[in-house]
Amino acid sequence: MAYISIPEENQLPGIRGLMAFRPETARPLNLLAEALLRETDNDLTRGDRELIATYVSYLNDCLFCQSVHGAAAQCYLEDDGTLISQVKKNFENAPISVKMKTLLAIAASVQKGGKNVTPDQIEAARNEGATDSEIHDTVLIAAAFCMFNRYVDGLGTWAPTDPKSYIPRGIRIAEEGYAGFDALKSIGK
Amino acid sequence: MAYISIPEENQLPGIRGLMAFRPETARPLNLLAEALLRETDNDLTRGDRELIATYVSYLNDCLFCQSVHGAAAQCYLEDDGTLISQVKKNFENAPISVKMKTLLAIAASVQKGGKNVTPDQIEAARNEGATDSEIHDTVLIAAAFCMFNRYVDGLGTWAPTDPKSYIPRGIRIAEEGYAGFDALKSIGK
Repeated sequence: MAYISIPEENQLPGIRGLMAFRPETARPLNLLAEALLRETDNDLTRGDRELIATYVSYLNDCLFCQSVHGAAAQCYLEDDGTLISQVKKNFENAPISVKMKTLLAIAASVQKGGKNVTPDQIEAARNEGATDSEIHDTVLIAAAFCMFNRYVDGLGTWAPTDPKSYIPRGIRIAEEGYAGFDALKSIGK
Repeated sequence: MAYISIPEENQLPGIRGLMAFRPETARPLNLLAEALLRETDNDLTRGDRELIATYVSYLNDCLFCQSVHGAAAQCYLEDDGTLISQVKKNFENAPISVKMKTLLAIAASVQKGGKNVTPDQIEAARNEGATDSEIHDTVLIAAAFCMFNRYVDGLGTWAPTDPKSYIPRGIRIAEEGYAGFDALKSIGK
């Protein structure tokens, strides 16, 4: 049970129930997710972006967000879950580019607090070819998930525990994105 | 110097330079601030909301955000800065309502991480008359500033150190809000 009374709580886990409760804030939150996770104007792919979101949500121990965005990352990256698990366990040993490793290191610092990002981390990312735009998006994705994770867990929402149950949601995100998602539609309003 | 090259950096401190760098994400971020800090549909006033934003930004040690939103709170609450300082020092002793104290306690837990919010804290807020809507908004304001603060400091932006220099910005926020703010306008684009 969430800390507040949300519509159709049984059907709407995590942020989805909160978005149905408060459509006024759901709209900018979905627009932000769309701009950050889908509208790529640099070399960070949608899969890369969902991977950063998943990793930060894992560091924040947010089951709902790491599962939903992990499922989206799996869909984009054509992963059966193995890669996501490797990244969570130790991204330095995962089969991803060195550039992605430097960006995940920046994201991990942002998760602790903005001032934890160091000039050395930025330089390491630049040495691997990361652009201003990619560094910007990495920091804002990591910061945004520090918000989404706190929103979901700070209001005590529930989340399915079976990882498989998130797979269809990941596919739907990959196909339809976030901006068109209207939480009220899903409860027939 | 910020970690990335932002337009007119000398004139645009904190999040303002980042918004000029990336208008695509600036728009939903400003819409979110407007919905959370200005569009009140419950008893939390604009001053209360800016006070929560200021307190969380203080806990995250973000000079730019605590100064800008502190200036907005001062404007709404007709405070000369004394109240803001008291809240930062120890809100339990500040001359604010007991309800606001229970909401600031929830906000402080959100700042640490969503799972730090306890059922007892929610019950204490309810006992002082806090509604679902007010609890929701408190958690999301606190969570959102965990994003804004990380965005501003994670990219190493600069911030004026003179508190007085933020006063005009606070007045402008009170008068014009966030949604109409276009970062590009301020640099003549």
